[in-house]
Amino acid sequence: MKSIVIHAAKDLRIEEQLVEGPGPGQVQIKLATGGICGSDLHYFNHGGFGTVRLKEPMILGHEVAGHITEIGAGVEGLQVGQLVGVSPSRPCYQCKYCREGMHNQCLNMLFYGSAMPFPHIQGAFREVLVADATQCVVADGLTSGEAAMAEPLSVTLHATRRAGELLGKSVLVTGCGPIGLLSILAARLAGADFIVATDISDFTLGMAKRFGADIALNTAKFPDALEKYQSKKGTFDVLYECSGVQAALVAAISVMRPGGTIMQLGLGGEMTLPMMLITSKELSLKGSFRFHSEYKTAVSLMQKGLIDVKPLITHAVGLAEAKAGFDLANDRSRAMKVQIAFS
Amino acid sequence: MKSIVIHAAKDLRIEEQLVEGPGPGQVQIKLATGGICGSDLHYFNHGGFGTVRLKEPMILGHEVAGHITEIGAGVEGLQVGQLVGVSPSRPCYQCKYCREGMHNQCLNMLFYGSAMPFPHIQGAFREVLVADATQCVVADGLTSGEAAMAEPLSVTLHATRRAGELLGKSVLVTGCGPIGLLSILAARLAGADFIVATDISDFTLGMAKRFGADIALNTAKFPDALEKYQSKKGTFDVLYECSGVQAALVAAISVMRPGGTIMQLGLGGEMTLPMMLITSKELSLKGSFRFHSEYKTAVSLMQKGLIDVKPLITHAVGLAEAKAGFDLANDRSRAMKVQIAFS
Amino acid sequence: MKSIVIHAAKDLRIEEQLVEGPGPGQVQIKLATGGICGSDLHYFNHGGFGTVRLKEPMILGHEVAGHITEIGAGVEGLQVGQLVGVSPSRPCYQCKYCREGMHNQCLNMLFYGSAMPFPHIQGAFREVLVADATQCVVADGLTSGEAAMAEPLSVTLHATRRAGELLGKSVLVTGCGPIGLLSILAARLAGADFIVATDISDFTLGMAKRFGADIALNTAKFPDALEKYQSKKGTFDVLYECSGVQAALVAAISVMRPGGTIMQLGLGGEMTLPMMLITSKELSLKGSFRFHSEYKTAVSLMQKGLIDVKPLITHAVGLAEAKAGFDLANDRSRAMKVQIAFS
Amino acid sequence: MKSIVIHAAKDLRIEEQLVEGPGPGQVQIKLATGGICGSDLHYFNHGGFGTVRLKEPMILGHEVAGHITEIGAGVEGLQVGQLVGVSPSRPCYQCKYCREGMHNQCLNMLFYGSAMPFPHIQGAFREVLVADATQCVVADGLTSGEAAMAEPLSVTLHATRRAGELLGKSVLVTGCGPIGLLSILAARLAGADFIVATDISDFTLGMAKRFGADIALNTAKFPDALEKYQSKKGTFDVLYECSGVQAALVAAISVMRPGGTIMQLGLGGEMTLPMMLITSKELSLKGSFRFHSEYKTAVSLMQKGLIDVKPLITHAVGLAEAKAGFDLANDRSRAMKVQIAFS
Repeated sequence: MKSIVIHAAKDLRIEEQLVEGPGPGQVQIKLATGGICGSDLHYFNHGGFGTVRLKEPMILGHEVAGHITEIGAGVEGLQVGQLVGVSPSRPCYQCKYCREGMHNQCLNMLFYGSAMPFPHIQGAFREVLVADATQCVVADGLTSGEAAMAEPLSVTLHATRRAGELLGKSVLVTGCGPIGLLSILAARLAGADFIVATDISDFTLGMAKRFGADIALNTAKFPDALEKYQSKKGTFDVLYECSGVQAALVAAISVMRPGGTIMQLGLGGEMTLPMMLITSKELSLKGSFRFHSEYKTAVSLMQKGLIDVKPLITHAVGLAEAKAGFDLANDRSRAMKVQIAFS
Repeated sequence: MKSIVIHAAKDLRIEEQLVEGPGPGQVQIKLATGGICGSDLHYFNHGGFGTVRLKEPMILGHEVAGHITEIGAGVEGLQVGQLVGVSPSRPCYQCKYCREGMHNQCLNMLFYGSAMPFPHIQGAFREVLVADATQCVVADGLTSGEAAMAEPLSVTLHATRRAGELLGKSVLVTGCGPIGLLSILAARLAGADFIVATDISDFTLGMAKRFGADIALNTAKFPDALEKYQSKKGTFDVLYECSGVQAALVAAISVMRPGGTIMQLGLGGEMTLPMMLITSKELSLKGSFRFHSEYKTAVSLMQKGLIDVKPLITHAVGLAEAKAGFDLANDRSRAMKVQIAFS
Repeated sequence: MKSIVIHAAKDLRIEEQLVEGPGPGQVQIKLATGGICGSDLHYFNHGGFGTVRLKEPMILGHEVAGHITEIGAGVEGLQVGQLVGVSPSRPCYQCKYCREGMHNQCLNMLFYGSAMPFPHIQGAFREVLVADATQCVVADGLTSGEAAMAEPLSVTLHATRRAGELLGKSVLVTGCGPIGLLSILAARLAGADFIVATDISDFTLGMAKRFGADIALNTAKFPDALEKYQSKKGTFDVLYECSGVQAALVAAISVMRPGGTIMQLGLGGEMTLPMMLITSKELSLKGSFRFHSEYKTAVSLMQKGLIDVKPLITHAVGLAEAKAGFDLANDRSRAMKVQIAFS
Repeated sequence: MKSIVIHAAKDLRIEEQLVEGPGPGQVQIKLATGGICGSDLHYFNHGGFGTVRLKEPMILGHEVAGHITEIGAGVEGLQVGQLVGVSPSRPCYQCKYCREGMHNQCLNMLFYGSAMPFPHIQGAFREVLVADATQCVVADGLTSGEAAMAEPLSVTLHATRRAGELLGKSVLVTGCGPIGLLSILAARLAGADFIVATDISDFTLGMAKRFGADIALNTAKFPDALEKYQSKKGTFDVLYECSGVQAALVAAISVMRPGGTIMQLGLGGEMTLPMMLITSKELSLKGSFRFHSEYKTAVSLMQKGLIDVKPLITHAVGLAEAKAGFDLANDRSRAMKVQIAFS
């Protein structure tokens, strides 16, 4: 079977791997769809990000869905032929953070396609995937493309839970890539009343409007576009910072109302922040990282039609064109989520 | 001008009142619509409830909307002709609870149509109403019937805020009168995933399904209908108890999951509860009473189309037929919200 | 080795058991001290409580400490000779509640000395106890009597955490047995400013004062003693209800301030409550049941001298006099915590 | 009467002012003690901080206590001769944040001795002060020096409340000036178990130990002193950042445990932070600014002996020696809190 392996920046190869059968508690899955995520792009473009660097070849991918082809011993509740979303989150369930219920902070996490430990954690972009039954959520009624979107949707559901109650609140979203757009959906789902989105691409801002933003602002063209929200110390109760860009966060801090909450989802390096504003307005700047139990919720909310992610999937390419798919995913002037069709 | 005055149980009269002009900071409103609430019905049916009893004639009504006819001195941001929802919440803004932001607990509250203090607080069912500008929320784009629904919707928004973050949660609603139905809408708006509703009327349960309940159960016909949700100590994260009936609450306690939250909105007297279950499952039973800042949010959410209350308004009657309207509102086999058209 | 076995109400026997060695991950402990808890007394006095009834002989006891005599394979961080407090909480760490971090709600809990499942969970009142290493907390610097108090102290720490931030708050404690007194200590430790305690025994109220209550009220002698705290809708931010008695809870509800929190620790059966007051004052009535991670915290706080439980231990009796110890523990006119010296 | 007026950096003058009588709702106070705060020192040393600059002469001071000399019309509950702590917090009680209970974020705040608006808000370092009765808290049983400490203590109580429940938690305090030391006291009062303090002065670290820090580390002498707390992603549940220094905050971020909370009290300008760590460990960085209702709590906790601030007051100087007092307060090798004796 084939897999998508990154060797170094821009060195992406389709390689053969041995097909494995499921062990006890596991299932074998014929992959249908894999979405390209921002971290996949970091490995593809730069061979890593920050201090996380590729040190050996690594299979990419962690947004995947497929059909069960074989059931391992002791697995209950799953059947051959079912479409499942496969959560890339594999905590140990034994360490101190797992025992506190903070599985995304697991000390021994095996998250698909991550170069953080060495040897790297191999990813899920392969035609045949063996996964633990506990990773699989049956996705009846969804397309495999939607099921693969459960992963990035979970990221924004996790952030939304950490943001607290959102009913009737004013929300700002900075950065309108897939995580930003899903944040708009999640915020609206949680009852937000007024949503403003910013980005530097008219294409993504157009999608932000389509996804329910009340107002979409191009801060490249209009650097002062947020200024109108500064009165009375600021406007927004909650910020989803999805860009990982210092300028976006700094501009947003000026328009947060006192006591407001900033959810930092965008992955950035060092940032220079106006601490006096954070202190005097008593803002709460909270990191949000990955997810765990939200994966099951994500599938359920899509199945009920409470969240529709389909318009976000702008492109699907075949496995043979994977590299072209990565190039396309880099182009925020026309592509949002690019998925690879494995079968 | 005419008003609707309750003198004693079943003694409802249309009476003339003097028309007043607005004082400083006030506006005069030509009432368009007034909704009949459960507490109005208590006065009509029984002359009060619990220890709250009518001791003098009282104008009923606190769910009202109308058009501004005159603006008092110093009022900004309102114009003659505008449709406004009028919040019945008039706290003093000076007492210790007001200063803590808990306006609904104001020690000097002047809530329309309440016999709790003496002299009673006169209500808003009158053709011409003078109100503080701060009570008025412009309701452009809504019908006056919808605008009048901002009041009961606020009750459920307040309870939903107090329930905490609801994203992806399982919710039970007991009692499917107007507050129960609006609780379904509010819970869904806040991101609830699975909603079960119970009542003893097939008419109201049918509306519960229409308002988004996944499952609607008639506990009069099927007393054990909730039993299936008892496994693993219980199913529901959050209960909206909207019936004020002991049997409903007791049955619900058995199917709450450990750590679950019960929002008590229904007004009941003494209830005998299984304290051992509350203690051992570590449930949180929280009272929820009225609202304040949620009124503005309620109008905004309806204006955006995020909540649609129109199907809830089953009947409108003219002022002259007010008494018939009260009789109708008592009939849960065919009426949900009954509103009085004042103009 | 000897153990303390309850066969039926008042039928308490000292019986021989076989001494066992530690399995992997376990240690063998020579018990030093075991405290008699209210639930032990329920079995002794009545053969159970509520629907929980003795169906077979059961070793009592869950407040224990002793010295390690043998170390099982794979145990790290413990040594022969060490004094350890032994937590009676043995969750499965695998069920849904364990994985959420709610170990005290474990679906497969094996809590020492509990007749809730059948076969019953045997208790820890035995001369030689084999326990999991994870249950043991080294108690250097404490007496074995203090170490045995870690268990009831954990109960009140758990309730205190669930009560939220207590800094400068007003606290009411109803019921001044050991849990009530430890609640006073825990509330003070968490920064409570004003603490009132009620009971019907002058002996326990005297101890309440000694443990830091600002005011101690005998509600048997002065039934209206709390009335002075009713002004402005009520006084207390937090109630620790430790009596399990309906009259105590009902009286306390009247003096809770709006938005106040009631922690229900006392185990009672059905109670008839003024729901209108709970609803209109928006009280939060929260069950609190057992504990888990707090056990380690309890030992640490005692070691640092931040909590001193010694004055609470009014009596110690030898194993041969265990039955007399139970009789003594029933007498709230002169006994608070009665402990059994096993060695 | 005399007052202490800052004209520009290092230009501190003792100047005569007219004595005023109390208006309605006010009292006249003969000042006893005024403590020199960090912000007073900023004006003295640099003529301001950040963008806040002196633009006209300003009376300094906001940590004050004194004896009532005259009572204005309509004041109840205060008597001539009483010692009162005077809160410098004068919100409008009318703006949107006041109405939400966030008085410290008041849009029209008149906080003593602040150059933020123009004209500046004159301070309280004057022999005779007229204050609103609502600012005054009777301080029976305290010295005037202690009563003046209610102000900085309130700052740390406010931060502690915002930090959430602290029972049994691990706390790091960076910066051991008066606010850092009071944070140690407040954290201990709220039930913290393990407290580590860092600074670059052995004098202040010695006081930190005396105030209850378990461990005090000089990070100037031992830059890697915190490294031992990095294992398992970090150690501390809560950080009180009291230095306003970027290096202190950055070092602390590395030793915060996942999900930990950083309270930023220290006032700094721009800081460059490792956002990837904040995001991936899901830290919450919360600003904390001033206080309001905590002032009354601060006085009460000192009156009960639950907090003892006296050892923090290292020096008292006469009004004539005020400038020497400011120089002394700048010297962290021997002075902690320096107070001025006005009478």
